[in-house]
Amino acid sequence: MPEHSAFDPLTLPESNATSYPEPYRAANRMRWNRRLSDHANLTNFGVNLTRIVPGGQSSHRHAHSRQDEFIYVLRGDVELETNAGMEHLRAGMCAGFPAGSDNAHRFVNRSAEDVLLLVVGDRTAGDEVSYPDIDMHARMEPGGRYRFMRKDGTSF
Amino acid sequence: MPEHSAFDPLTLPESNATSYPEPYRAANRMRWNRRLSDHANLTNFGVNLTRIVPGGQSSHRHAHSRQDEFIYVLRGDVELETNAGMEHLRAGMCAGFPAGSDNAHRFVNRSAEDVLLLVVGDRTAGDEVSYPDIDMHARMEPGGRYRFMRKDGTSF
Repeated sequence: MPEHSAFDPLTLPESNATSYPEPYRAANRMRWNRRLSDHANLTNFGVNLTRIVPGGQSSHRHAHSRQDEFIYVLRGDVELETNAGMEHLRAGMCAGFPAGSDNAHRFVNRSAEDVLLLVVGDRTAGDEVSYPDIDMHARMEPGGRYRFMRKDGTSF
Repeated sequence: MPEHSAFDPLTLPESNATSYPEPYRAANRMRWNRRLSDHANLTNFGVNLTRIVPGGQSSHRHAHSRQDEFIYVLRGDVELETNAGMEHLRAGMCAGFPAGSDNAHRFVNRSAEDVLLLVVGDRTAGDEVSYPDIDMHARMEPGGRYRFMRKDGTSF
């Protein structure tokens, strides 16, 4: 008989690990990820449950060249910063960021309570990530990992 | 300036349209879909907000050959039927169905209240959908639409 498929995502371990290089790591360690799709053995797309503590951000503001992103706010109040400015999102709202739109985005928790986001992204090869606010750029390598560099291409 | 990215998914129109052929249509019209990813202009994967009314199902029990599926229960109590039997899910629980696992699944609302699911699936080409409980099979055609047939390959 196959295993049961359903689970409570809050029972999974969470991690605040980040692949960002210094000096950009500290700002990214106030969000904790649970890898729901990995737990379910999915490979075509990723689903994270992201918990942002007060004062934290989901990531530095960024845009993907080839990958779509979708975010649903499960709990809390969060500010979304994009090229269009700031938007306030409450639980039950969502947002999408199409590949190649160059609409750089991040979620910032300026409230006093934790924020919970469900974050979906695909894994299309050849993706690049641009960071308009900091001197960083990322390129997906064969195998799926991202290599971080300065905007002039030099290594950190 | 770009448009704002966030929206309240409950403000989108919903539809109980189904591409199932007769005699399998009626059972599938007690679930209403809102196409969140289409609204956000995403193309690499699909995200639906699915509302199942009491007595309804998300779909006939099925398994995808090449596409992953992920479901998060936003509201209500719902029964998940898979090859492993029945599981009861409450709001905040989730489940994933890896491509090619043959673990056919559907969600059934046997409660007295609406169920709200967030449903994610990718769009990998060449997908086939098997339906172990009924005489139906589906093949994704170039362009992304599914063609439904009987298990012996004949048309409905």
